[in-house]
Amino acid sequence: MSLIIKPRVLKGFRDFLPENEIERKSLTNKLEKVFQSFGFVPIDTPVLEYTEVLLGKGGGETDKQVYQFLDSGKRDVSMRFDLTVPFARYISQHLDELYLPFKRYHIAKVWRGENTQRGRYREFTQCDFDIVGVDSSSSDFEIMLMMKTSLNTLDVKDVTIKFSHRGIFNRMLETLCLKDKTVEVLRIVDKLSKIGEVQVVEMLQEITTSENALKILDFIKPGKNFRETLDKMIFLAGGEDEDSQRLNEIYAFIIENGMENSFLLDPSITRGLDYYTGLVYETFLNELPEIGSVCSGGRYNNLASLYTKTELPGVGSSIGLDRLLAGLEELGMKNSKKSLTDVLIMQVDKDLTGHYHKLANSFRDKGFNAEVYPIQKKIQNQFKYAENKTIKYVVFCGKDEAEKGLFNLKNIESGNNYDSIDILKAIEIM
Amino acid sequence: MSLIIKPRVLKGFRDFLPENEIERKSLTNKLEKVFQSFGFVPIDTPVLEYTEVLLGKGGGETDKQVYQFLDSGKRDVSMRFDLTVPFARYISQHLDELYLPFKRYHIAKVWRGENTQRGRYREFTQCDFDIVGVDSSSSDFEIMLMMKTSLNTLDVKDVTIKFSHRGIFNRMLETLCLKDKTVEVLRIVDKLSKIGEVQVVEMLQEITTSENALKILDFIKPGKNFRETLDKMIFLAGGEDEDSQRLNEIYAFIIENGMENSFLLDPSITRGLDYYTGLVYETFLNELPEIGSVCSGGRYNNLASLYTKTELPGVGSSIGLDRLLAGLEELGMKNSKKSLTDVLIMQVDKDLTGHYHKLANSFRDKGFNAEVYPIQKKIQNQFKYAENKTIKYVVFCGKDEAEKGLFNLKNIESGNNYDSIDILKAIEIM
Repeated sequence: MSLIIKPRVLKGFRDFLPENEIERKSLTNKLEKVFQSFGFVPIDTPVLEYTEVLLGKGGGETDKQVYQFLDSGKRDVSMRFDLTVPFARYISQHLDELYLPFKRYHIAKVWRGENTQRGRYREFTQCDFDIVGVDSSSSDFEIMLMMKTSLNTLDVKDVTIKFSHRGIFNRMLETLCLKDKTVEVLRIVDKLSKIGEVQVVEMLQEITTSENALKILDFIKPGKNFRETLDKMIFLAGGEDEDSQRLNEIYAFIIENGMENSFLLDPSITRGLDYYTGLVYETFLNELPEIGSVCSGGRYNNLASLYTKTELPGVGSSIGLDRLLAGLEELGMKNSKKSLTDVLIMQVDKDLTGHYHKLANSFRDKGFNAEVYPIQKKIQNQFKYAENKTIKYVVFCGKDEAEKGLFNLKNIESGNNYDSIDILKAIEIM
Repeated sequence: MSLIIKPRVLKGFRDFLPENEIERKSLTNKLEKVFQSFGFVPIDTPVLEYTEVLLGKGGGETDKQVYQFLDSGKRDVSMRFDLTVPFARYISQHLDELYLPFKRYHIAKVWRGENTQRGRYREFTQCDFDIVGVDSSSSDFEIMLMMKTSLNTLDVKDVTIKFSHRGIFNRMLETLCLKDKTVEVLRIVDKLSKIGEVQVVEMLQEITTSENALKILDFIKPGKNFRETLDKMIFLAGGEDEDSQRLNEIYAFIIENGMENSFLLDPSITRGLDYYTGLVYETFLNELPEIGSVCSGGRYNNLASLYTKTELPGVGSSIGLDRLLAGLEELGMKNSKKSLTDVLIMQVDKDLTGHYHKLANSFRDKGFNAEVYPIQKKIQNQFKYAENKTIKYVVFCGKDEAEKGLFNLKNIESGNNYDSIDILKAIEIM
């Protein structure tokens, strides 16, 4: 008698039951259709890479979270912790086989050994889309349009995409002679929605003058409308420039496409310590802003400097599928189908098994998902199975009906019976 | 100036360029539709698991190939090396939340640090489908039907699914008093297609009598038809039993469904050292049998004995996506689309960028994939981009046309131009 091993998964890792996996697949399929409709192409990269390739020679704050080990060939390898670094490596390596501008999407799992508090997972799915090789307002706007379209396609209509410009923020800091405190300021500003204005000013006062602290607060507070907000940003950053011109262009595109209700210029959006240099975006569910941004991104001026001397400016965004799903669940918008089966052929006579499979195939030929109950059991067991899988229709077919090419169909939900019908009649009913 | 790191991937790992990833996604989408049409539901499990859970307390031949390490919490973890073991763990753990019989599919990557010769990869995709919790000829046949339907759906019509019964094979060995030499016999028989009959007999003679060696050869050679093959198997195994009855039933289902050309009873199919106990299957491309089986499986009598005392008999099969793709490529059946974009809106006037995005959206609303060239560049550059992505249509729109809601459409393939048309006319043409 062998020892039983307790079946369990690692902390921060998850199994997906069919109803959850059906939902996830449905969402990612819809997202893929949107990405493709904007001309983006899919790519894939290995889950494992050389550690040096993913982390560079040095290593920073992320490193402790990376799943890193020596493989059996003594190579120092790591599991990918995001999809951006592998993409930078990918495009540097395959530039000859590709073309610029290159628009790719990548929906895949990544791993981070993070603290698992507050619904954070160690294995989670990212949905990234980026345009690389061009620096234009058209691309900046296209990414924003995709963010909106993606979420709308998932029936999340009530969203606000907040955007700002990291270049103008940096210039504001320069104007205040705070460039060398950028990291500290970003860390504090990033907390605005959590700790509020008063505390932000208090914290800023610890690293600069009260006057500067109030100017920064003034900068990050949106005005009454786009114009007022941008004018204030321009003023505090010391005047107009290409970056403010870029924001003007973006806003004109938003107006022309009739989307001013979905977008908000919000100068408190900085994307913290990320590598962004231009436009930055975050997306909030209006009914559930507290779960944070479900789709974020921005423009970077050099994606792949670690691997190539070719300058590759780009802009992109990423949907956090797990957070979005958590949000949809909280909003009661989760769609929990236990299966995708339309009709169950009951096994009422074992001798007809071959016929049942033929019958199931005839439903499939008409575009329905059909299955044969796999063994002759009590009818209540078979009904229970249909119930477990939330199958709407069942078919009963005995020898007499089989000979005539007919069967009996039952709608379990309504209780309606349709006796001695054929496949054409059945699909009319279904 | 920072040091450039050479972009590269690990041996046995692969990047997928857009044309390959589009093809892979198209295949897996089609497979998923088939699996769903048979009532199978998707699940997912973690890539990393406790090593003890995946490998048991002991460990066998596979172990050296497993990517195993200590995580930062000193847990002994491994990357999954197949989808069967995680499924066994999964169903044991979630039996209360699920129901039996349970029909699941799982399309996902697995990792094995194998020798990378002969097109074997260390990261590859499996497409598994199993029916667990029932032992019936109906289920055995359903899996066969799915194997055939899956491959046909991928336009691989010319396949032979070879099947046999491991139970009858075992009984034949018992009859010859060779039960304790099962492993050795299986290893030899498995080589039949590679080394031929003469060498098989020679090798068998090293472990048993010449008479037995010839009897084994006789057993594994198919007869002229199903009946003759089965009769010989029954004779050499010492008579009829439940297992031969099962084969009879399966054959009746095959006949009733008019599929005798796709299935062949071939007693040399044993699935080697795998855990199968009943029906076993392998699938060969008739035009390319030498690449080996592209879809294999069988019946096992206890899936999850490592994790639960509940007996879970099952039957399933797995499509080796990478091998199948290699086969399709060799047969010239690979479909290499560089993108899925239908139409490129050329950027001929930067001031119309907002309008171009609106125009692209109007194509998307009609179900076409459309993109805006992201920057105003020379027209030949924009044409080159369309060519790189094999985009069939381009749109030119200047200020005059934009004001009238019109544009010019060009079919790059035919060279045809359609001037001053609107979106309704355009979709008629496309």
